Amino acid sequence: MAQPRTPGSPLGVAVIGAGRIGADHARRIESRISGARVAAVADVEEARAKAVADTLPPGCAVHTDPVEAMRAPGVDAVLIASSSGAHEPQLLAALGLGLPVLCEKPLTPTAESALRVVEAEARLGRRRIQVGFMRRYDRQYAELKRMLDAGELGRPLMIHHQHRNLLSMPRFTTPMTIRDSVVHEVDVTRWLLGEEITAVRVLRVDPPTSRAPEGLSDPQLVLFETAGGRIVDTEILANSGFGYQVRCEVVAEGGTARIGEETGVRVDSAGRWGGAIPPGWEERFAEAYDRELQAWVDAAARDEVTGPSAWDGYAAQAVCEAGVASQPTASRIPVHLAPRPGLYGR
Amino acid sequence: MAQPRTPGSPLGVAVIGAGRIGADHARRIESRISGARVAAVADVEEARAKAVADTLPPGCAVHTDPVEAMRAPGVDAVLIASSSGAHEPQLLAALGLGLPVLCEKPLTPTAESALRVVEAEARLGRRRIQVGFMRRYDRQYAELKRMLDAGELGRPLMIHHQHRNLLSMPRFTTPMTIRDSVVHEVDVTRWLLGEEITAVRVLRVDPPTSRAPEGLSDPQLVLFETAGGRIVDTEILANSGFGYQVRCEVVAEGGTARIGEETGVRVDSAGRWGGAIPPGWEERFAEAYDRELQAWVDAAARDEVTGPSAWDGYAAQAVCEAGVASQPTASRIPVHLAPRPGLYGR
Amino acid sequence: MAQPRTPGSPLGVAVIGAGRIGADHARRIESRISGARVAAVADVEEARAKAVADTLPPGCAVHTDPVEAMRAPGVDAVLIASSSGAHEPQLLAALGLGLPVLCEKPLTPTAESALRVVEAEARLGRRRIQVGFMRRYDRQYAELKRMLDAGELGRPLMIHHQHRNLLSMPRFTTPMTIRDSVVHEVDVTRWLLGEEITAVRVLRVDPPTSRAPEGLSDPQLVLFETAGGRIVDTEILANSGFGYQVRCEVVAEGGTARIGEETGVRVDSAGRWGGAIPPGWEERFAEAYDRELQAWVDAAARDEVTGPSAWDGYAAQAVCEAGVASQPTASRIPVHLAPRPGLYGR
Amino acid sequence: MAQPRTPGSPLGVAVIGAGRIGADHARRIESRISGARVAAVADVEEARAKAVADTLPPGCAVHTDPVEAMRAPGVDAVLIASSSGAHEPQLLAALGLGLPVLCEKPLTPTAESALRVVEAEARLGRRRIQVGFMRRYDRQYAELKRMLDAGELGRPLMIHHQHRNLLSMPRFTTPMTIRDSVVHEVDVTRWLLGEEITAVRVLRVDPPTSRAPEGLSDPQLVLFETAGGRIVDTEILANSGFGYQVRCEVVAEGGTARIGEETGVRVDSAGRWGGAIPPGWEERFAEAYDRELQAWVDAAARDEVTGPSAWDGYAAQAVCEAGVASQPTASRIPVHLAPRPGLYGR
Repeated sequence: MAQPRTPGSPLGVAVIGAGRIGADHARRIESRISGARVAAVADVEEARAKAVADTLPPGCAVHTDPVEAMRAPGVDAVLIASSSGAHEPQLLAALGLGLPVLCEKPLTPTAESALRVVEAEARLGRRRIQVGFMRRYDRQYAELKRMLDAGELGRPLMIHHQHRNLLSMPRFTTPMTIRDSVVHEVDVTRWLLGEEITAVRVLRVDPPTSRAPEGLSDPQLVLFETAGGRIVDTEILANSGFGYQVRCEVVAEGGTARIGEETGVRVDSAGRWGGAIPPGWEERFAEAYDRELQAWVDAAARDEVTGPSAWDGYAAQAVCEAGVASQPTASRIPVHLAPRPGLYGR
Repeated sequence: MAQPRTPGSPLGVAVIGAGRIGADHARRIESRISGARVAAVADVEEARAKAVADTLPPGCAVHTDPVEAMRAPGVDAVLIASSSGAHEPQLLAALGLGLPVLCEKPLTPTAESALRVVEAEARLGRRRIQVGFMRRYDRQYAELKRMLDAGELGRPLMIHHQHRNLLSMPRFTTPMTIRDSVVHEVDVTRWLLGEEITAVRVLRVDPPTSRAPEGLSDPQLVLFETAGGRIVDTEILANSGFGYQVRCEVVAEGGTARIGEETGVRVDSAGRWGGAIPPGWEERFAEAYDRELQAWVDAAARDEVTGPSAWDGYAAQAVCEAGVASQPTASRIPVHLAPRPGLYGR
Repeated sequence: MAQPRTPGSPLGVAVIGAGRIGADHARRIESRISGARVAAVADVEEARAKAVADTLPPGCAVHTDPVEAMRAPGVDAVLIASSSGAHEPQLLAALGLGLPVLCEKPLTPTAESALRVVEAEARLGRRRIQVGFMRRYDRQYAELKRMLDAGELGRPLMIHHQHRNLLSMPRFTTPMTIRDSVVHEVDVTRWLLGEEITAVRVLRVDPPTSRAPEGLSDPQLVLFETAGGRIVDTEILANSGFGYQVRCEVVAEGGTARIGEETGVRVDSAGRWGGAIPPGWEERFAEAYDRELQAWVDAAARDEVTGPSAWDGYAAQAVCEAGVASQPTASRIPVHLAPRPGLYGR
Repeated sequence: MAQPRTPGSPLGVAVIGAGRIGADHARRIESRISGARVAAVADVEEARAKAVADTLPPGCAVHTDPVEAMRAPGVDAVLIASSSGAHEPQLLAALGLGLPVLCEKPLTPTAESALRVVEAEARLGRRRIQVGFMRRYDRQYAELKRMLDAGELGRPLMIHHQHRNLLSMPRFTTPMTIRDSVVHEVDVTRWLLGEEITAVRVLRVDPPTSRAPEGLSDPQLVLFETAGGRIVDTEILANSGFGYQVRCEVVAEGGTARIGEETGVRVDSAGRWGGAIPPGWEERFAEAYDRELQAWVDAAARDEVTGPSAWDGYAAQAVCEAGVASQPTASRIPVHLAPRPGLYGR
């Protein structure tokens, strides 16, 4: 068990995984987050961990064993940015040490393994794990949530999502359109509505866009039914060719609310009015990542964990599995969830 | 057969049906359309026909028999605005007289009867009938169609429609949400994409909005599959409570294009920026009705008919019937169309 | 004095001047305006008048003398689209004949001559002249005026105008930026506020835009003071290089209201969101011209004249003269108006 | 002279002035800024300094003498948030100690005293002072500046600013509309264009808005001429009654660019589309304050000062004095600046 931190001293974070995301988070902690420092970095490739540590102030330990990094002196909290296949044992180890964790999505690669993590945390009886669903920290999504919770729009009826990427990554597959991309809309839907998704159906456009690599279904229309009888649709277009766009409209009894319009400088030039569309999520959600990390650090400094829970990670995983099961036939796939432990509220 | 019209003299129109729509069209012809006049008005209730004629310049004949009105002196063309159950015999009569017709939607109440009209016109071997799908004459829809036909957006992949009314009419039923409202999206989809709809599925939100009268499914999400493998979704919300909105976004390989944002005065006042949402289609599509009628008059003066065809009326009807069949179970209903007569192009 | 027109028959219009604007108006009357026809066309060059008449239905008289055209059989009203130097005698002739007139702006080339026309109409004791300030018929400007008159924004305090052309016409001069372009903002300002402009000051950007031809001051900032102590500014940019834009924002005690944003299809493509900027006023104000002409025809058919008056034409001219006087030195030039005849209201 | 800071340890900041702004900055440093801590707080009222220190982690010294606070152990940099009348000696003391300074605007209350600070820093031969013109750190302004510097819009010709507050503070006077509000547009104009303002003229609306307290000129139109012959206008409306708005449009040879539209959730409800207008600058510029402070801390940690300079503070003061001189008569007042020391670039 970690030593109690001196009040007022910065939170020591062990960053597990020194790939692109881990390196980004380490840099963010050092350059933009108040009250935290990177106390240790771990990666299976020591050189990679060392490369990240070299960009940080002196005093950051380097490890190849993630659990040793969690046990290193001055470590108060754990940020897991390793490959998703490695998450489960790392999460269980952090639970064993009682440390607050921020785990990049997905919680684990399957609903089954995610449920084991949920059960372990439930046995511990105390929330230690936050999952990296950073959209909840975006200003516009947060304001939308506030409006819904305050009842300003009345009872929600439908949600329309659009999720467009500039180009799909190399080796991107049709199941990954659900697991890596639509998983965000899964979480946003559950969070905004405060209820579970009960069935999924995925319709594909065929032939797909000629911008898509051979074999990739793109675009698709993903339909959710929710426990409250609502209908939610998501356009997922992995190869828009024009930029990154994430939009969301909630249709409610009292009106509709929309977010996601581009908000930069408007230019009138050469016969066109308009502005730039950002190429990727880094531009669109940079501030949300900062706010997510600052919120996690602030809570961890009080020895609390408050953001999206392990249950949210498990439920999202179960919905994604149903979506992937629907893709070949476009049939409606029900989502079955285990009972929700009391730790995660009603 | 009607006498040839003197060149330069106004087109004489017989208005069949003197209810709200018929009266509107008669007033429009007299006050805003160039080159036409109302030569006769017919209604089963003579008093209603006479009331409309009394608002027009002298010389408008009044009839209770629609065919007599079509045969009245000075009648060069027919505008059918009677109840849809009466359309079939009136259309066949106008075909028999060889007169150009503008027929309010729906062409007839069933796909079966609509097909009989199509076959009669095909036998005549000449287009005489235009169906009142006025959205094709809206500036924004027309510009969208131009862009697609010019290939400016590349190959279309999906369309998202939203169709919101302020409040549903009294005695509005769940099938009418398809037959009276979504029928417009059916036509717009076929027209924009230039291909037929092959299957329909209707998902409902349950419980419906509390603004809806007892027994009405509202809102619903209507899904079309098209002959080219595209997916099209339509939100139909008959009781938005806030106004009338019709929006459309085409997602294509080269980008997306959207229409339907409100375009009036922007007011910043009392802590809010924004503007007014019109209450009904009259405000939104007034200009489209003018343009539709002017275009029909201009073509009829050349003895031509060029707008949405009887085939378009038939195909829309067939899609709506599939939609209504899907409503109780949300199952996918294929659309079966008769072979398309050569008169209507490929 | 013209013969009384048969009720219900179309209004016969004499079009004076068969240049571009006159030809446009003749075509508009024949193709889009209800209840009117071109009865005569006059131009100093007979071939030009004949060329316009040849595009119209049979029965349009051709003249070289404008007064003969006004006296031609079937002429009920006069549309003056000749060069502005010829307006005064034509207006006086039409007044002599008691015919309703629509006169393209400017009423006459100088405030002095415009005042003579005002005085002649005042002696006649009856409004016969409408000046072609067509912006008053634009939907957005009309809605703005309605809001102000209804008090929805409270007392107006300032107005910001922007007036941008794609490129200046050949031989366009610095005084023409006021007389031909800003004259519209002069009229809109007087009309929206319902009060006179009392002083003008014109500031120029120096060096001008390199898009401007040698010798043209472009852009300029034109400042009006009004009788009610309000301040109004107008950016005039004759060579924007990117398109035609007319925008207007009224700042009032209860909020602000803005018009003039582009309203067409929004396209997201190639890293940009936005839409097209029209190249010229023809696209922006086509509908306003239709509505202006229809409103003038409708009133003339009742033997009335209701739009912008000869006084409005005179006052605009006087303000423009003050603006031109300010251009060389940027000094504040007061506007002195003759007393307003009672015919034109308070 | 301060002791060299241990590399990697947080920058110790002395906050001078514990009023609202000072307390805000202290909280910001502790909760959102990476790499800094509040090492000392000074205020003439000790209780006020202590109240701020009590909200911070242990170890923050409390002083009544600002120079003692600057000399306190662990102080590496100075943030001046005292009343502007006290700035000059505090700035000179910080220069004497060689510490990096962030000084809230205005640099000093008069151009004369500001020039003395400029001269003192020039004698030191090294930039130590940054002035708190935080708009330069707003994302939208920064993107506009980037576009202009990259030449994406061509040569700038005009700028239109609008600056609207919800309500003026108690005891707000007409000169304060320039000194406290328009001073931001002064700085933004100089920064965006990279040239000095050479003359100012202030036009007032009379009578003012009835929302303004007795004696306050509101709104006003402020006109700048620049060294490059450009014209810049600013609407200042201290009592809009509807919210806080800051907008800016640059008109350039290659097009125009605009910032400042509200960017939150769009709601369609109750017959209106639109969204919320924030009540104050805290909401609009919160992120800009964070970025300003983080940028200053990052530079100070490298012993550098890079933001708006003492010269910028002096020049803004000189322009504001000309503006205040213009207010009574609306006459054009030239701005005379002392020669710019080489320290501040060309």
